[in-house]
Amino acid sequence: MSYIEQLRVEPGAKVDLRKIDAAWKGEHDSHEHAAPEIEEATRKLRELQFLLYAENKRALLIVLQGRDAAGKDGTINHVLGAMNPQGCTVTGFKVPSKEEAAHDFLWRYHKAAPAKGQVAIFNRSHYEDVLVVRVHELVPKEVWSKRYDHINAFERMLADDNVHILKFYLHIDPDEQLKRFKARIDDPTRHWKISDSDYAERPFWDDYTAAFEDAIGKCSTAQAPWFIIPSNHKWFRNLAVSKIVSEYMDSLGMKFPPPSVDIEAIRKKYHALAN
Amino acid sequence: MSYIEQLRVEPGAKVDLRKIDAAWKGEHDSHEHAAPEIEEATRKLRELQFLLYAENKRALLIVLQGRDAAGKDGTINHVLGAMNPQGCTVTGFKVPSKEEAAHDFLWRYHKAAPAKGQVAIFNRSHYEDVLVVRVHELVPKEVWSKRYDHINAFERMLADDNVHILKFYLHIDPDEQLKRFKARIDDPTRHWKISDSDYAERPFWDDYTAAFEDAIGKCSTAQAPWFIIPSNHKWFRNLAVSKIVSEYMDSLGMKFPPPSVDIEAIRKKYHALAN
Repeated sequence: MSYIEQLRVEPGAKVDLRKIDAAWKGEHDSHEHAAPEIEEATRKLRELQFLLYAENKRALLIVLQGRDAAGKDGTINHVLGAMNPQGCTVTGFKVPSKEEAAHDFLWRYHKAAPAKGQVAIFNRSHYEDVLVVRVHELVPKEVWSKRYDHINAFERMLADDNVHILKFYLHIDPDEQLKRFKARIDDPTRHWKISDSDYAERPFWDDYTAAFEDAIGKCSTAQAPWFIIPSNHKWFRNLAVSKIVSEYMDSLGMKFPPPSVDIEAIRKKYHALAN
Repeated sequence: MSYIEQLRVEPGAKVDLRKIDAAWKGEHDSHEHAAPEIEEATRKLRELQFLLYAENKRALLIVLQGRDAAGKDGTINHVLGAMNPQGCTVTGFKVPSKEEAAHDFLWRYHKAAPAKGQVAIFNRSHYEDVLVVRVHELVPKEVWSKRYDHINAFERMLADDNVHILKFYLHIDPDEQLKRFKARIDDPTRHWKISDSDYAERPFWDDYTAAFEDAIGKCSTAQAPWFIIPSNHKWFRNLAVSKIVSEYMDSLGMKFPPPSVDIEAIRKKYHALAN
């Protein structure tokens, strides 16, 4: 069974994150054991991105969500950094700017949607508007509770326009998060990044769990599935995400477009003597 | 002597591209021989980009120019693809859109300038407006001839705002270009990319040479130097560009900012038991 099938959340499923082992490693016991598979998936990813670009008929949107230190940046670096940067945009969504806040909640995400032939990666996404916004009641419940439908409608519209959407929740447990925060404390080159707010969200752990469960359960659809990626082990997270993306792209049956010119004529005209 | 010194064009220099050996390999005779140095330069590049991002005080603009098949895409892929995509934007400039053409010639390039802490790579650039535009007389000489000063003023303004600018001309000779075109003809996965226009510019080779020489000579300045990179050997091109960028960044004396919080207090409060 592929990771696509093992880690995909079925539409309408009731998600219980506490029942999902964040330390799961699939069939591998170690990074060393998984290394050849990781390398192969990375290589395939690069090939398939080139094909997506060449074909120029569809786009890919990759959504990354997870708690602080879950590994969103790491995933982008190690897995998606394998892609050609010219065919790939990464957009990180932080606290909205004044202009962004003055618009409907989907406005700033829509602007960053991928063009045909392109891959767009969202580091955080429109889901923040039913996550942090819900946990801290930044808008009333009657506002955020309608957003699941808005999100599904938005994603359906994108999918109908040949934007393929894959959404990843990077799943870590509270101990792993604390361990990662400590690693930052122990690394002087990362001290400048540390703020009290890293720790301020920890008391809301369960509220976030509930918000993630709802977002994932209500918005995992056939056209835009959520995957829950066990992410305590960084190497397994990298393996699972890159395999899911590459296997999904592979399943699309993309083909290089036919040449727009007479290749043999060009060969004869310009290269007959250069052989 | 470093590549910075060897390959930099001094302000006011008279550039004669025909005198520069496009097949130069520095002190290396082969890719194998240069491989450890390439790897080391790539590693340093990644480290220094992180420091640039952390410091958040300055930006880096990398301009890539060269004839068709000179290796602009390859340089971005192999050298600059080493960077964290979240701190790096790549903008390719093709035929201007209607909106772009309705503005002054620098407008679209300015929009793509890097924010503090970021690296921006221009795949082709504002120099096209004194290259293709000049060779094909897309605007009269009295218009394009004033642009060298406009470009220098624009770059001076960016530099005064802590945008560091490095400009690379990827230098290949006519035989190498034809060889690369032929390689495309021989690779079925690249047939879709081939167009007659690949060959249509070859009769203008010398006009482009003159245009490049003027652009490089008139616009290599202390704050925004041009480098002429011998690029017949792809591995040497990758080595030279990554070494110049990393040595230049290294020379800036960047430092991690001090922590904004009391690290020891956080360690005691949250990690005393987690040790």
